[in-house]
Amino acid sequence: MPDNFAQDSVGLVTPQTFHFDEPLILACGRTLQSYDLIVETYGELNPQKTNAVLICHALSGHHHAAGFHHADDKKPGWWDAYIGPGKPLDTNKFFIVSLNNLGGCHGSTGPTSIDPDSGKPYGANFPNLRVRDWVHSQARLMERFGIKQWAAVVGGSLGGMQAMRWSLEYPDRVRHCVVIASAMKLTAQNIAFNETARRAIMTDHNYNDGDYLQHQTLPQEGLSIARMIGHITYLSDDGMGQKFGRELRSGSFAQGIEEPVEFQIQSYLRYQGENFSKSFDANTYILMTRALDYFDLAREYNDDAAQAFRQAQSKFLVISFTSDWRFAPERSREIINALMKADRDVVYAEIESPYGHDAFLVPQQVRYWDLLTTYMQKIEVSC
Amino acid sequence: MPDNFAQDSVGLVTPQTFHFDEPLILACGRTLQSYDLIVETYGELNPQKTNAVLICHALSGHHHAAGFHHADDKKPGWWDAYIGPGKPLDTNKFFIVSLNNLGGCHGSTGPTSIDPDSGKPYGANFPNLRVRDWVHSQARLMERFGIKQWAAVVGGSLGGMQAMRWSLEYPDRVRHCVVIASAMKLTAQNIAFNETARRAIMTDHNYNDGDYLQHQTLPQEGLSIARMIGHITYLSDDGMGQKFGRELRSGSFAQGIEEPVEFQIQSYLRYQGENFSKSFDANTYILMTRALDYFDLAREYNDDAAQAFRQAQSKFLVISFTSDWRFAPERSREIINALMKADRDVVYAEIESPYGHDAFLVPQQVRYWDLLTTYMQKIEVSC
Repeated sequence: MPDNFAQDSVGLVTPQTFHFDEPLILACGRTLQSYDLIVETYGELNPQKTNAVLICHALSGHHHAAGFHHADDKKPGWWDAYIGPGKPLDTNKFFIVSLNNLGGCHGSTGPTSIDPDSGKPYGANFPNLRVRDWVHSQARLMERFGIKQWAAVVGGSLGGMQAMRWSLEYPDRVRHCVVIASAMKLTAQNIAFNETARRAIMTDHNYNDGDYLQHQTLPQEGLSIARMIGHITYLSDDGMGQKFGRELRSGSFAQGIEEPVEFQIQSYLRYQGENFSKSFDANTYILMTRALDYFDLAREYNDDAAQAFRQAQSKFLVISFTSDWRFAPERSREIINALMKADRDVVYAEIESPYGHDAFLVPQQVRYWDLLTTYMQKIEVSC
Repeated sequence: MPDNFAQDSVGLVTPQTFHFDEPLILACGRTLQSYDLIVETYGELNPQKTNAVLICHALSGHHHAAGFHHADDKKPGWWDAYIGPGKPLDTNKFFIVSLNNLGGCHGSTGPTSIDPDSGKPYGANFPNLRVRDWVHSQARLMERFGIKQWAAVVGGSLGGMQAMRWSLEYPDRVRHCVVIASAMKLTAQNIAFNETARRAIMTDHNYNDGDYLQHQTLPQEGLSIARMIGHITYLSDDGMGQKFGRELRSGSFAQGIEEPVEFQIQSYLRYQGENFSKSFDANTYILMTRALDYFDLAREYNDDAAQAFRQAQSKFLVISFTSDWRFAPERSREIINALMKADRDVVYAEIESPYGHDAFLVPQQVRYWDLLTTYMQKIEVSC
């Protein structure tokens, strides 16, 4: 079977589900009595258990980061370009753990799961989560593997927020913290886009106050709009222009009765929105965007990010992309400034890229690849 | 009564409605047999009729650009800061004509008007309009006043597109063309935002394929989302940050059962969206955004903007604002480059401003004020 896959692919992978019975007290004050986390791992945990890397996913991500579930899958996991034997997150060296976060809709306990108290899907009654709740649940997962310290915690965007929070919540359990295209807190504009996306979902006629599963409806139109907003903001203006320009589907403007979809970008966006709305849960989308909005690294450290990072013991790699306007390089420079002020060990690179915020996922970017490779190769795992 | 108003206000104004019976053949191939245009004028037309200035409005604008309709109106017209005695568009010198465009929802014939053929509101059956259709209807309005040539045609954003189109369609009828925060065509990103806004309206359960008036429903939720998207993109990231930051409404995050509206920016956006959705017609919004998308100044001039501008006989003033990312300064520089290549007479200024695309409407911007004033003062009206 491995013959079917490229040499640098992790090949076929099978997710595992871990059940947790110990109650998890959440930042919002509520408690999850029990929950499941669905997980994939790539590579082998070494006997000293010092080579484990945690991958934290972004807004719409999940546990399936690399490899294939079936030999005939058309697409591999979402970060397959950077995970595998000989790749930057080298599975010949590292044992990589990738999970679907709590509140997700790909197998971990979330709004579509059955609430044991009511026997019905949680729906809108699933608790709001903060980034720290994910970090705490990931720490328990770590214990299941018997891992005492991650060689690295790695994440882009919302995943980078988790990596930073790890460095503050469990300083002695993280050796390296890799923060890609992220921020210590969202700007007002970012919150505004998220708010508009949530409104689109919540005002969908089929949303039913979040209990759409009980009503056997799905707020697909609203979720589709939300995804379209997201998608525009994850690409750069120039990148979008290069990809689509003002190309017309038909070659010329319709005359007489007008055809409403005329530009390539329109049909592309509609397709993206509709596709996403069939495969993602609307309440999870709301929950994930709220976690983004609420994240504020320094809030409980007197709004002093340097004071926050003085808790950290890990080393840091921070990466931003020039055309990313949703998590602009300026946001990464703020992280760097705080880390330097806190006298932490940090490497920063701003990568030239036309791909906007999505750049952290885009394959074949040489400098990004080289940088990640070089940094990850230097990490000691035989300590 | 004028005692109630500031000395530099045009004071009380009364709109007039002009009825047109001569059929208007539209760019889409359809014909409007008859239509109304609602108009306001400020200042006096001189005997030679050489001091007339046409104001073209943007996406959500209308004829009420300056002064007050009632002595107790809280707000004046949308460009009152720049129109009046002693202001840049000086009513002591100019006779200013401001109309609601065809397809609008403030008194000119549009989707909410009764279609004489069916006896019902046009709704979604109102023809799609292009910028040139507006220019043609404005030319007829001009003839009603007996004006042979505008001293200037002035517009921001979509209004600037009308001003440019005027200079090509009726070269001998425009002496000066003032193009503010505009573009010769939208970028793919701009089209994408417009498409998402339209989708939000058209997927609203109450849209009813555009015939909501006949169904006695209004797609207010969708229109509200559309306005929220627009509003975010008309402000700059920094400007929004300065105005709202991450200020919480309550001072701290809610605990336990979460309050869904926590950030100031959220409640502000919701208020803006809801307010707009009560006062604006959804089909008009769709029509106006399509006109924006379709506008492509050089399309029928072999995609050569210089070739297009060689038709023009007017002089040009082009203004952009540094923080405007929806109609970025780069778009204005493209206009300038084409005008220079076409050997036209042009003044360009990029104004430092934190207000994003909305800057063209924002009062008390000294350099913008001075520039407009200086340029308009130099315009000869006694020729």
